[in-house]
Amino acid sequence: MSEMFSSEVFLAYSTYSTIVLLKMLLMGPLTGYFRVKRKAFVSAEDAWAHGATDEESKKQLMRTDPYVERVRRCHRNDLENIIPFVSIGLLYALSGPDLSTAVMHFRIFAASRIFHSIAYLVPLPQPSRGLSWMVGLGVTFSMVYGVLKAGVHL
Amino acid sequence: MSEMFSSEVFLAYSTYSTIVLLKMLLMGPLTGYFRVKRKAFVSAEDAWAHGATDEESKKQLMRTDPYVERVRRCHRNDLENIIPFVSIGLLYALSGPDLSTAVMHFRIFAASRIFHSIAYLVPLPQPSRGLSWMVGLGVTFSMVYGVLKAGVHL
Amino acid sequence: MSEMFSSEVFLAYSTYSTIVLLKMLLMGPLTGYFRVKRKAFVSAEDAWAHGATDEESKKQLMRTDPYVERVRRCHRNDLENIIPFVSIGLLYALSGPDLSTAVMHFRIFAASRIFHSIAYLVPLPQPSRGLSWMVGLGVTFSMVYGVLKAGVHL
Repeated sequence: MSEMFSSEVFLAYSTYSTIVLLKMLLMGPLTGYFRVKRKAFVSAEDAWAHGATDEESKKQLMRTDPYVERVRRCHRNDLENIIPFVSIGLLYALSGPDLSTAVMHFRIFAASRIFHSIAYLVPLPQPSRGLSWMVGLGVTFSMVYGVLKAGVHL
Repeated sequence: MSEMFSSEVFLAYSTYSTIVLLKMLLMGPLTGYFRVKRKAFVSAEDAWAHGATDEESKKQLMRTDPYVERVRRCHRNDLENIIPFVSIGLLYALSGPDLSTAVMHFRIFAASRIFHSIAYLVPLPQPSRGLSWMVGLGVTFSMVYGVLKAGVHL
Repeated sequence: MSEMFSSEVFLAYSTYSTIVLLKMLLMGPLTGYFRVKRKAFVSAEDAWAHGATDEESKKQLMRTDPYVERVRRCHRNDLENIIPFVSIGLLYALSGPDLSTAVMHFRIFAASRIFHSIAYLVPLPQPSRGLSWMVGLGVTFSMVYGVLKAGVHL
């Protein structure tokens, strides 16, 4: 095993990155679940595989469902926020942060993103979703500061 | 060169990550190719650069083409699946897996994603695309298990 | 601190990756800013939080604004190009490139992506946006070549 896994900070980074990436990955099956449940497909071959028998019934199955679109927006927001966290988090974990500070960053980010998904999917009234998004963004910005403070080469 | 590149597992991770990221990157030019070929643009400046001479012809060039949208869905699916593979794969490669097990994970993932793109772009009848997507997802989940098994710090 | 941060190439990778990821992250707040300014929302709870008082006014606030869509396309293009740069750049930085060559790659990529955003958001007439996109893609392809040249394990 790499010596990296013997560093507690790196181990914490590995654990929380995996948790948020796993959360993000689950949005894919969730989209599929609601596409099938709501009978709202976007590709013709999907309509044929889920009940279409002729051109008419195919057309009825190829439609946009508001809740499917909501799940997809939640998924896209994850892509926009979780992936930068994972990339910057790696640099941050290698930049030698204090263990408790680093773990606090990772915990707040993971909690904010899980709450963000709940707020998006229920949906909860604003500003729940907006605030959880800002908290996650704030954690990432704080890690950006940590990375740049550790060293810069322009 | 970093000592990481002297690890066979890391070298395999590097090779297969690069292959799938390269496959994903090619979706960009492919979208551009079909936008030009099908004369289906979304930004006004693109319409002006590709044949629009007045407001009327510009409006005709700014339209949604079903095949361009298909290429874009394929691209987005790559973003949703290939990037988590690359992020989790890095942790997995550093967690000390057996070389042959790791290479098997990487090979199956790369094959499943290449087949996924073919199934999306031809398109092949379902469940070809659905199954190849699930195989790739299964590989990533298996790597998540490997990473968490190697060590957790909550 | 990890010994990685004592490598100049890795430090340059860290600096430029952080810069382009930060640029990408700012697209999120920019989208939110224009959604509020243009009163163009996509989720009902956002419309209620920004002035809707009844079903009628809610419907008027839930609409697609061309400039908001432009910002979102710019953001998506960042996801498609900046994230692969960051992933491949890490492997490239670890593959032992010449410092000045590596820094040149990173600088050209960062400049091309910043110019790409300006060209998208002003917008500038084509081919400004197209060329800046191609330059960034070219840098990434060049790093792919560097990674594979450093070692392959299939």
